[in-house]
Amino acid sequence: MQALQYLRPSLYIASFFALHIAVAMLIPAFIDIVHGNDDWAVFMGSSVGVFALALLGIVSMRQPLPKFSPRFGFLLTTVLWLVTGFVSAIPFWLSPLPITASEGFFEAMSGLTTTGSTVLTGLDTMPKGILIWRSMLQWIGGIGIVAIGLFLFPFLRIGGMQFFRTESSDRSDKAMPRMVNLTAALVSIYVAATVACALVFAALGMDLFDAVNHAMSTVSTGGFSTHDASFGHYGDNLGLIWSAIFFMILGSLPFVLYVELVLRGRLSLFQDIQVRVFLLAILLVSLSLGIWLYANTDFQFFQAFSRAAFNTVSIVTTTGFASDNYGLWGSFAIGLFFLLTFFGGCSGSTTGGIKIYRFVIIWQAFRRALARLVYPNAVVPLRYGERHVDQDVFDSVVTFLVAFFGLYGVMTLLLCALGVDFLTALTGVLTAMSNVGPGLGEIIGPAGNYQPLDEAETWILAFLMLIGRLEIMTVIILLSPVFWSD
Amino acid sequence: MQALQYLRPSLYIASFFALHIAVAMLIPAFIDIVHGNDDWAVFMGSSVGVFALALLGIVSMRQPLPKFSPRFGFLLTTVLWLVTGFVSAIPFWLSPLPITASEGFFEAMSGLTTTGSTVLTGLDTMPKGILIWRSMLQWIGGIGIVAIGLFLFPFLRIGGMQFFRTESSDRSDKAMPRMVNLTAALVSIYVAATVACALVFAALGMDLFDAVNHAMSTVSTGGFSTHDASFGHYGDNLGLIWSAIFFMILGSLPFVLYVELVLRGRLSLFQDIQVRVFLLAILLVSLSLGIWLYANTDFQFFQAFSRAAFNTVSIVTTTGFASDNYGLWGSFAIGLFFLLTFFGGCSGSTTGGIKIYRFVIIWQAFRRALARLVYPNAVVPLRYGERHVDQDVFDSVVTFLVAFFGLYGVMTLLLCALGVDFLTALTGVLTAMSNVGPGLGEIIGPAGNYQPLDEAETWILAFLMLIGRLEIMTVIILLSPVFWSD
Repeated sequence: MQALQYLRPSLYIASFFALHIAVAMLIPAFIDIVHGNDDWAVFMGSSVGVFALALLGIVSMRQPLPKFSPRFGFLLTTVLWLVTGFVSAIPFWLSPLPITASEGFFEAMSGLTTTGSTVLTGLDTMPKGILIWRSMLQWIGGIGIVAIGLFLFPFLRIGGMQFFRTESSDRSDKAMPRMVNLTAALVSIYVAATVACALVFAALGMDLFDAVNHAMSTVSTGGFSTHDASFGHYGDNLGLIWSAIFFMILGSLPFVLYVELVLRGRLSLFQDIQVRVFLLAILLVSLSLGIWLYANTDFQFFQAFSRAAFNTVSIVTTTGFASDNYGLWGSFAIGLFFLLTFFGGCSGSTTGGIKIYRFVIIWQAFRRALARLVYPNAVVPLRYGERHVDQDVFDSVVTFLVAFFGLYGVMTLLLCALGVDFLTALTGVLTAMSNVGPGLGEIIGPAGNYQPLDEAETWILAFLMLIGRLEIMTVIILLSPVFWSD
Repeated sequence: MQALQYLRPSLYIASFFALHIAVAMLIPAFIDIVHGNDDWAVFMGSSVGVFALALLGIVSMRQPLPKFSPRFGFLLTTVLWLVTGFVSAIPFWLSPLPITASEGFFEAMSGLTTTGSTVLTGLDTMPKGILIWRSMLQWIGGIGIVAIGLFLFPFLRIGGMQFFRTESSDRSDKAMPRMVNLTAALVSIYVAATVACALVFAALGMDLFDAVNHAMSTVSTGGFSTHDASFGHYGDNLGLIWSAIFFMILGSLPFVLYVELVLRGRLSLFQDIQVRVFLLAILLVSLSLGIWLYANTDFQFFQAFSRAAFNTVSIVTTTGFASDNYGLWGSFAIGLFFLLTFFGGCSGSTTGGIKIYRFVIIWQAFRRALARLVYPNAVVPLRYGERHVDQDVFDSVVTFLVAFFGLYGVMTLLLCALGVDFLTALTGVLTAMSNVGPGLGEIIGPAGNYQPLDEAETWILAFLMLIGRLEIMTVIILLSPVFWSD
């Protein structure tokens, strides 16, 4: 149980983070005060309580930080997200909303993991404090996963950025010298993108509160809305639809390439093969679905294409906004959205899912395998763009996929055993693991809501969001004997 | 187009095989004559026609056989099964049954691939010639895939027996010296198992015709029945149910180990880790489902366990008999049968699906990956039982899985685009690729039938059975540019 020594320092760091969450809770409190909602007391009380708990954690868990090791990294990451999840759920639990224990945690975790599934209805008339809190959780979770993906996961050899790290370390003297600079640049770009998105949304017809909320939800590829009808609330406002498409895609590309663009004027975005594959795939899928919709519905072509593109981008970027109940678009759309739920965006972005770079690597490996079947002695190196993929990276892709599909199967069966119908279980587990949001079927489809699920089912899906968000292996490794043995 | 040179010799060998099929058609003709069915003329006519065609093929395609190469192997295997499929479909097309072009090919391919999906209804009153022909196709297909898996696939480095070949070549002087001997032993054992199965079935209450048909269907893990209700026809005859369980499992173990047992008295069956995992998994799954059924239905415990075991074994051995409409057993059973459809039995057996040895290897690799996440510098060899798994075998497992799931996704979407409902597409493609038989839902579920599908859908599923039967890569490679380029 040598790994247990890392629990204290993990809780220590998590307590520091909780301190920031406590301060963040003052924002919804302030907004509730401005709008005259009694809810302000919930947030104020939560803030004070969490602040006190966090201080207690800092004082009681204080000790010199251990040297970094994979074990410490895995435990720290999981503890950090778990503690943040529970702490962030407190306002939901304390609020007058009719919310159960699991539902509060689900809503908080859905925000932090930028999943965007909700157990709440009546959003349109809900106190604004709760609404902005949901949006803030996504926004924090979005930049959080980008930072962890960039600074922590590469050392744990998961998540795909170890691959890009190789690239940056090749020219380490030219790249920005310090992590602090990089962090500052990332946060600045994230804030700027969010502000730009909010301004565009407001200019195109949203009121300011909606614009800010949806901007936080869009740039983080989260998917919470301030309306039960999600983007459907804005009807046929194609300007809004296309600007949302733009900013969802913005949140799905490797953030580190924005830093390169802004700080060094290097437009290397389109040199990354995953970016090109991602954009091309979105275009092709949206066009196919658009043509199919045009042929099978009363939509005008551009209307059909816009709706196809919006929902395609919403799912594939793992945002999960809905503009339409595409469950009614017929079998092709249903099958397509199911498959898109696996994909996700680029590594180093706010998106979940399997992610494009893994598909690129697997596809290259598959092509190599085909060549080897015909020419058994051929030596074909595995490449990603112009770079060599070493065995280590390939193995980590395979391991992720095995864990993903294995967990997917087991958890689907578990939900079925709890009495969830097959389609809801099959798509609910997937959409949670991929951090997308909507599933298929009556209950959790794009027009549905997670409220009908029972306590156990809601807990399971909440933990699946966390597991998916942390690239699965981070959590799975904690359940394996090898992690805890000496 | 260098590979095109192999088309003539492939057709030459396929013609030789068609000659045997033509002779085999005399058996249903004879049975129809004995039972006074006019259908005998269909089989007699088909036999003469195929015989003539086959002779023409042999004469016109005659040339010295080229040296063996992977390209020749892949093309030969695919051509052989395709030609046999078309030739075997002729009696269905010529028969008075209301059968379309695709349906005849589907029925023949379903037999040859030991899938056991059917487009026919009214089996109970159907001419016996047609019934025995369906059973014969499965029986031929079963021993055919065992032979190809043992003699051809290892040289193409697919299918998993290359792994066992390493083992046998380690002690090549002790193993049987010649392929002919091995083939003779395999066929003898296969015939003996079928006869034994038929005798047991007859002793336990089937009439002789049913017993012979179901024996051919069981030992080949095919799944065609002579009754629309499949094994449900025999109601609560638990003796029949358990003997079918026994013989389905018999067809799912590596046949080469039977040869070792019979000819050399070596019981190495249970030393093979895939056999142990397979049997243990069947036991655990059957028990869980049995307990679940006992708790949720009016069945007695042993009745519930028997039904659970029968349907579990039927799906996991890719046989596809149904004793019950388990679609009505609730969500847990539905989810379970969906997942079981992926698995399949052991390498070197008549089963389809992903197969247990691949799961064993992937699981070992996954455990190794977990260890490496904690100890990045650890060198852990990949093992299967006591043997070392080299990178080549591991890569071929990964390649198979990528091809399996990639094809699964693409084909599900294609069926959806053709208008098939999502559940039918999702489970129809899977059950075809795995050579199982029943899917889920109203149409193709255990109580359903493939007749409602349209021409294009039926062709697609028929080809998917073929692709799945030939370990996917055999056919996929023919579609890749590298196969045809020089």
